Amino acid sequence: LVKRKVGADTMKDPRGFRTCAVNIGIKDETTDFSIVASDRPCTAAGVFTKSRFAGPSVELSRRHLADGRARAVVTVSKNANVANGDRGRKDAEEVVAMVAGLLSCGPDEVIIGSTGVIGRPYPMDRLRERVPGIALSAEAGFEAVAKAIMTTDTHHKLERAEVGDAVIVGIAKGVGMIEPDMATLLTYFFTDAEIGAADLDGIFRRVIDRTFNCVSVDTDTSTSDSAVILANGTAGEVDLDDFEKALTDIAERLTKQVARDGEGATKLIEVVVTHARDETQAKKVAKAVVNSPLVKTAVHGCDPNWGRVAMAIGKCSDETDIDQRRVEIEFGDVKVYPDAEPDLDRLSAVMAGDEVLITVRLATGSASARVWGCDLSDGYVRINADYTT
Amino acid sequence: LVKRKVGADTMKDPRGFRTCAVNIGIKDETTDFSIVASDRPCTAAGVFTKSRFAGPSVELSRRHLADGRARAVVTVSKNANVANGDRGRKDAEEVVAMVAGLLSCGPDEVIIGSTGVIGRPYPMDRLRERVPGIALSAEAGFEAVAKAIMTTDTHHKLERAEVGDAVIVGIAKGVGMIEPDMATLLTYFFTDAEIGAADLDGIFRRVIDRTFNCVSVDTDTSTSDSAVILANGTAGEVDLDDFEKALTDIAERLTKQVARDGEGATKLIEVVVTHARDETQAKKVAKAVVNSPLVKTAVHGCDPNWGRVAMAIGKCSDETDIDQRRVEIEFGDVKVYPDAEPDLDRLSAVMAGDEVLITVRLATGSASARVWGCDLSDGYVRINADYTT
Repeated sequence: LVKRKVGADTMKDPRGFRTCAVNIGIKDETTDFSIVASDRPCTAAGVFTKSRFAGPSVELSRRHLADGRARAVVTVSKNANVANGDRGRKDAEEVVAMVAGLLSCGPDEVIIGSTGVIGRPYPMDRLRERVPGIALSAEAGFEAVAKAIMTTDTHHKLERAEVGDAVIVGIAKGVGMIEPDMATLLTYFFTDAEIGAADLDGIFRRVIDRTFNCVSVDTDTSTSDSAVILANGTAGEVDLDDFEKALTDIAERLTKQVARDGEGATKLIEVVVTHARDETQAKKVAKAVVNSPLVKTAVHGCDPNWGRVAMAIGKCSDETDIDQRRVEIEFGDVKVYPDAEPDLDRLSAVMAGDEVLITVRLATGSASARVWGCDLSDGYVRINADYTT
Repeated sequence: LVKRKVGADTMKDPRGFRTCAVNIGIKDETTDFSIVASDRPCTAAGVFTKSRFAGPSVELSRRHLADGRARAVVTVSKNANVANGDRGRKDAEEVVAMVAGLLSCGPDEVIIGSTGVIGRPYPMDRLRERVPGIALSAEAGFEAVAKAIMTTDTHHKLERAEVGDAVIVGIAKGVGMIEPDMATLLTYFFTDAEIGAADLDGIFRRVIDRTFNCVSVDTDTSTSDSAVILANGTAGEVDLDDFEKALTDIAERLTKQVARDGEGATKLIEVVVTHARDETQAKKVAKAVVNSPLVKTAVHGCDPNWGRVAMAIGKCSDETDIDQRRVEIEFGDVKVYPDAEPDLDRLSAVMAGDEVLITVRLATGSASARVWGCDLSDGYVRINADYTT
């Protein structure tokens, strides 16, 4: 019952949502302000950054989702509205109130996301002048929204899946400051399936934990991480297992897009840790490998330097049940440690690919975990050294 | 009573040590094999990596230091002899035995350090052929040893201090795979002061914790981290407080040299966290800032992007007493958060320096910590992507 997307045009959008994506002039001439609004009330769930410098968008949205209901998501891009003190909080509330006015709903039905530079206030004059006149369209505008939430992304990220009569669409942005904690970057899902708020919350947390919480571009956790889902029920009930499977599928594809589009990235790195004591150990070791700058630069240079993978596993010094004599390491399907005399041609082919799989067998148990990341290139340094505040 | 080094030639070496630094052909034509040996037995102390992939050099040295006594330190550079299984263990023991034979002392009096590529065996044939014929010299050869232990270091690192009649000399190597845990990279100290093994151990652990354990180049912890001190007593007793002060001074200067010479580094970053709940919190926040790739690239680009410092503090999400409304951030002596309208000329001058100081006032207590790191440049990526195993 779960169909994968075959092309952007072959699958419908979820029914009962209106959208807009406009330029307000937050920073430049690109679209920077978008709304997705449901015609009827939705059940909703969200997970957010645990950063101690979380912005007012995160605080406000967390509060508005506490009752498991929402109507709309508004996103301001090119400005995170973070670390702006009381002014930032008031500005976020005013933007939400303007959108609520536009949609004739309560402010507590509006979720707000904000992404971009930290420590600079919104251009409130421009927002006050433009927002009240915005018209939402019933035409499918998810692609335009996916574009409007971008910052340094090189392309927009959008995936769809069908579950019975219902459709789920997911969008995401974010290519730097990415090591999500409870959630990640900005990612939104909209569906016309009918799902109770408690079920939706449980499914959403499980899915985000297995997908977006398993990606890291640069170990830096955003102050604005927000993942939100709205279900408006227009298409009626669906099988919950099918729904979770479809949502996992979309979220995993978006996650890999985020890793592959990581700032300066030229390769996707997938690290699979098997035979671990428990999932926590597996994920910890996998993260240590995928986040190691020396592993990342080796992958960038197509160098099968498995010694750096060993080093990264070794960093997990609290995991005292890991015995270096029992660990096994593979690049792609080529065993490199221990006692390996790998076929160098096959190994070169693996390292030359644009997706590099690193598998670690820990021999401490039977749990496993899979995480995604990207290589570290001169491009990452240039993007972030030349970025001027 | 503690004199700082004013120039390499103005200060004596500690008495009663002989040295050698030769080329064995471990990898290329540079000096790659060195010994420092005391004429008489020494009290000794050491701290080592906690890596689960620690090499046999670390295992062996830890065992040999258990009784607080040693005679010599041998270092093989350009090959770490890590992850080589039983063969690696046997090879390390054989090298130690050869050096013990050369010095006519017990193998358990020899400490061994090894640094370089992981997963490649020592060229034992060449070692067996060359080591037994090596002659040690009583001439001060610490500079030659400091050079022989280098790998990708751009220059050797050596510092001296006098304490009463005694002298301490310290050397260090290491510019990548550096986020020490219990110890760091390779760093050795030799002194002719007379100090009991228990006192020496206590002093050494405190000093390393405040210096080498406060540096990070790239968050990657070496499999070979070893810090060792030998005191041969030739110069007689010294005041222990003076000794600790002098040792701290040398260790801190070596630590800053390591950070400044970090792979690809163009700037030293010093992060000071004050008014923290306790030292653990202060060091955790300071490490989060100094290790953030986005902070490191901003410093590389001379960009006073304090939003990234706020983000890095925010990553310490378990530190729930940190309140973003009470935190203060300075670059150099220029306040940038909160409510700051910094003098942009002064701020530019701070960012253009080759040492950038970032101060964070947490307002959760009265503890503080100081850590060192370096910027992240294209150079780091090139060195580590082009390094071929």
